Parts: sequence; C-alpha cells; structure tokens
Amino acid sequence: MPTPTTQPLALHPAAQDLLFRQARTADRFTDEPVSDETVRAVHELVRLGPTAFNQQPLRLLLLRSAASRERLAPHLSRGNREKTLRAPLTALLAVDTRFHRRLPELFPAFPGAADLYTGNDALRERSALLNGALQAAYLLIGIRAAGLAAGPMSGFDEAGVNREFFPEGDLRALLVVNIGRPAGPPPRPRGPRLSYEETCTTL
Amino acid sequence: MPTPTTQPLALHPAAQDLLFRQARTADRFTDEPVSDETVRAVHELVRLGPTAFNQQPLRLLLLRSAASRERLAPHLSRGNREKTLRAPLTALLAVDTRFHRRLPELFPAFPGAADLYTGNDALRERSALLNGALQAAYLLIGIRAAGLAAGPMSGFDEAGVNREFFPEGDLRALLVVNIGRPAGPPPRPRGPRLSYEETCTTL
Repeated sequence: MPTPTTQPLALHPAAQDLLFRQARTADRFTDEPVSDETVRAVHELVRLGPTAFNQQPLRLLLLRSAASRERLAPHLSRGNREKTLRAPLTALLAVDTRFHRRLPELFPAFPGAADLYTGNDALRERSALLNGALQAAYLLIGIRAAGLAAGPMSGFDEAGVNREFFPEGDLRALLVVNIGRPAGPPPRPRGPRLSYEETCTTL
Repeated sequence: MPTPTTQPLALHPAAQDLLFRQARTADRFTDEPVSDETVRAVHELVRLGPTAFNQQPLRLLLLRSAASRERLAPHLSRGNREKTLRAPLTALLAVDTRFHRRLPELFPAFPGAADLYTGNDALRERSALLNGALQAAYLLIGIRAAGLAAGPMSGFDEAGVNREFFPEGDLRALLVVNIGRPAGPPPRPRGPRLSYEETCTTL
C-alpha cells in the first residue's frame, strides 16, 4: 500500500491550482473585456493584504483607451509593445512616495508613524517600493482569483513613464500588468524554480 | 426580492476568506510548532509565483534555535523583540543582489538576461528588492494557505541585520516574518483600506 501523501495546506487544492499551479503569466489574450466590476471585485479583496503601518502606497492607472495605451507604448521595451496594445486591459502600477501623509488616518494606533518618514526621501522610496511590490503581488494573485491571467512587465523606461504619466513627481512607476483571459498556451514552458534547499537555510 | 449580488471572482469564497478576509497579521501565537514539512509545502506552492526573468531573488533564513533568534533580537525595533523571541518560527527574508548569476539557467529563453544586470549595482538592487518583495507577498499568502498567520515586520536595523547574518555582502535583509497559529485576537482592529476611487484611475 502506498504511503498517503500528507496535505499540510489548508487551502483547497483547486484554489492552489487557480492561484499558483495552473496559473501562468500570459502575453496573448482573448478579446473578452475585463469589466470595471471585475477590477473592483479584485481590488476589494486584495486591498486587505498587509503593508507596513497599513501604508498602502500602490496606485493603479487603468489604461482602457487606445490613446492612453499609445502614450505608454514608446516607453516599453520593444518586445512588450504589441502585446500591451492588444491586451483587453493594461494596468500601470505606481507607488505614492508621499504615502506618509495619510498614515495618521490609516494607522491611528501609532500617531508618530508619519514622522518616521518626514524628510527622509530614501527611506520613503524604499518603503514605497517594498510595500507597493507586496501590494502588486496581492493584485497578481487577485487577478488569478478572478479566473484571469496577468502579464506583469518591468521592461520599460521608468523615467520616461514617470515623466509621461506622473509629472507631479510623487508617483513612481513600478510595474505594467496586462490583464485578460489567456488565448492559447503561455509564451514558454514554465521556467525552473529554485529548490527548498537552494532557498531556505535553518539556523 | 433583493437583487442577487454578483460574484465575479472564480476563487471560492472560503479561499478568499482564508487568504484575505479572515486572515490577519498576528503578533501572538500558540506553542504549536511550525514543522519543516509545512514550510516545505508552502515553499513548493509559492515558488511558482512570477518574477522578472524568473529571477527568484528571495532567500529565507529559518530562525528555529533560540541562539539564532537572540542574534536577531537586538536589531529589531523594541516593540518587535518579545513577540519574535516567542514565535514558533521566525523567517528572516533576504534578497540575493547577485541573482543575475543564475539567470542563464533560470531564464534560458533570453541568454542575454544576465548581461543587463552585470556591472549595474543600482539596477540589481532595485530589481532584487522589487522581485523579492513580490515573492515575500507570495510567501505571506502561502503561510495563510497553510492555515497559519504571519506577522511581517520591517521595523529593524537593516544594516545591523546584514552585518550579523550576511557578512559576505550579497544578501540584503528584506523583512522579518513571525509564523504560527495565532493566539487570541489580532493586535488591533483592521485598519481602514483605501477605496477603489482613491486607488484606481481610468484613462
């Protein structure tokens, strides 16, 4: 009799498949639109993910119009342009480097939280990048939770995108994410993942 | 008759609850140990999450021994020490800023990927931070998928932790995460989340 495999995860295997095992980064999508209602439902769920002092620095520009997509395209690396112009929806993810202004309201348990960041641009930029990236990952998971595929890309000219979309200077581009229902197989086989032994060390 | 609410998310509501709605950051845990088997199962799932060029910069130091926890404690902000010394497991998350050395194996589709990063420390550090934070978020989700709670903390002296644990200089501390089964209610009520309107703009 074979030894039963242990199942230590509480999350239902179908949910594990939807979010991680069967989900793949996509670069071609069907024409099916991604509705505002779907984006709202994803946002409503993933905004609950944790950030330091509940700072929530992530902002989303939903590029629905052809005109907005054409403002972005010249700043993308060449291989990312066509698929972005064709995707049902493209989200430009950015972080608010002046997130600390809202901390008195977002983290009332520690009234001095905003002061930690005031006048310290380097700390604010690192914190916005770290916590914004956490939120970006929650969003990618949320897109998969909606039964859709995401195509996240960091191959773009950040300075160019910031000048084009965020001339005020508080917001900084983080990632561009195409969203939709995938058409056909993923662009390539899943790449190898590092093993537990290569990643984890016990002390 | 009430209008039925739409349910646009494919993910089962119980899984939404487990990962986001009912999950909360914890700072007190029961004595129940977190086994290596559980950490392996979490890693096995969340290592599938996407990173740029499949770079996977995240590394985990699993601080199991009292001695390892005591090396960390002095570098934590005062409010984070006691709960970290008492947690069933503490993971010190770090990123490998020399992740590019493994790209020929991890992203064979683009043999020139490593060259983009060679000699560009600033780009490598930003990329390791961004992609390591994506992986950190996948890990937090995976800890919740195991039915456990995470207590992520960025309140520590990064330079001090790097000197203590990563004297070779390639790895940089990213987050400290306590892991276990929560004991009692979360430390405080859930903080307010930004609305869709405050976060998302359609162009």
